[in-house]
Amino acid sequence: MAVARGRRPAGSGTREAILAAASQAFAEQGYPRTTLRGIAREAGVDTRLVTHYFGTKQDLFVAVVELPFDPEVVMTGILGPGPEGVGQRLATFAVGMLETPAARRTMTGLLRAAASEEEAAVRVRDLLVERLLTPLAQHIGGDRPDLRAALTGAQMAGLVVGRHIVGLPSLAQATPDELVAAVGPVLQHYLTGDLSPVSA
Amino acid sequence: MAVARGRRPAGSGTREAILAAASQAFAEQGYPRTTLRGIAREAGVDTRLVTHYFGTKQDLFVAVVELPFDPEVVMTGILGPGPEGVGQRLATFAVGMLETPAARRTMTGLLRAAASEEEAAVRVRDLLVERLLTPLAQHIGGDRPDLRAALTGAQMAGLVVGRHIVGLPSLAQATPDELVAAVGPVLQHYLTGDLSPVSA
Repeated sequence: MAVARGRRPAGSGTREAILAAASQAFAEQGYPRTTLRGIAREAGVDTRLVTHYFGTKQDLFVAVVELPFDPEVVMTGILGPGPEGVGQRLATFAVGMLETPAARRTMTGLLRAAASEEEAAVRVRDLLVERLLTPLAQHIGGDRPDLRAALTGAQMAGLVVGRHIVGLPSLAQATPDELVAAVGPVLQHYLTGDLSPVSA
Repeated sequence: MAVARGRRPAGSGTREAILAAASQAFAEQGYPRTTLRGIAREAGVDTRLVTHYFGTKQDLFVAVVELPFDPEVVMTGILGPGPEGVGQRLATFAVGMLETPAARRTMTGLLRAAASEEEAAVRVRDLLVERLLTPLAQHIGGDRPDLRAALTGAQMAGLVVGRHIVGLPSLAQATPDELVAAVGPVLQHYLTGDLSPVSA
């Protein structure tokens, strides 16, 4: 690997090498521990080139992070035949997606970043809530789609925190089927149930 | 304040001054941004004294962080007359507690720390799940109290992340009553409902 890590001149795929190194670093080490210097080293370039192309660490994070799925395709699948069972289908998708190591690294990286940096938090909100959950709640057509999407997103974030970040043993060891059984009715409640304080 | 920040000799309340400065720094700045140097400056001591008394930043965090409530008192109140309404009472307690700025800083600080540091994650688990939620689930007496406690904790963590850390607008703007109405039935489900995959 010593040869591959020699300094790379500007030009020849530098941008792509930086993006690849950054993507891997954020996913594996999380936002707080990732440094521009480490990314530059992995990409085989000088740190100043990273700054030249991408600006700050926050800018680079925002440039590099993408959802590990296509929100429109996912939404169509989750909507399926209609509101009934939508919570179960969303839970099945989310739990299954997080079983894939690469997707899990991206989602835990996003949440770790969101917990420590305002700009990363905005990016998470844009990606997960604005592009997937709010359109989903709007399609389902109940009242207060924004609140429903936010409650759904908060529950999913909590599951990632509990199972994959804090690693609560009984959540980390639960099977996907067990999790879907427990969380599906909750997502159904948030997306289609009665949320009004009076009748609760 | 210039006088108060002069260097403090070892001895005279140094430990207490460091603990107070650390407690404030972790709560206000979050774990990743807090430095031993900054804590030492606030406490009016040399950084080496902080290290001498408390070791690493992680050690100091573990020494300093406490729940902003007494878990036993809270559990007794939440258990109240029995399993019925326990989700509603837990949601009312949690949402109300997070309305207090000091408690909110502690809980968001804990979660931010847990998202970035393994040791802090263990501390959060010990404090919130082991001392409050698992005993609560055990007292209620259903099957799988560990899983119920973890699901409950994950939902509550998600709410803090969504409302107070990422700041999803519709969650940040929701009234306590609206949140309790939405989340109460979910906590009830996790604490007393049927979680088995077969019947779901």
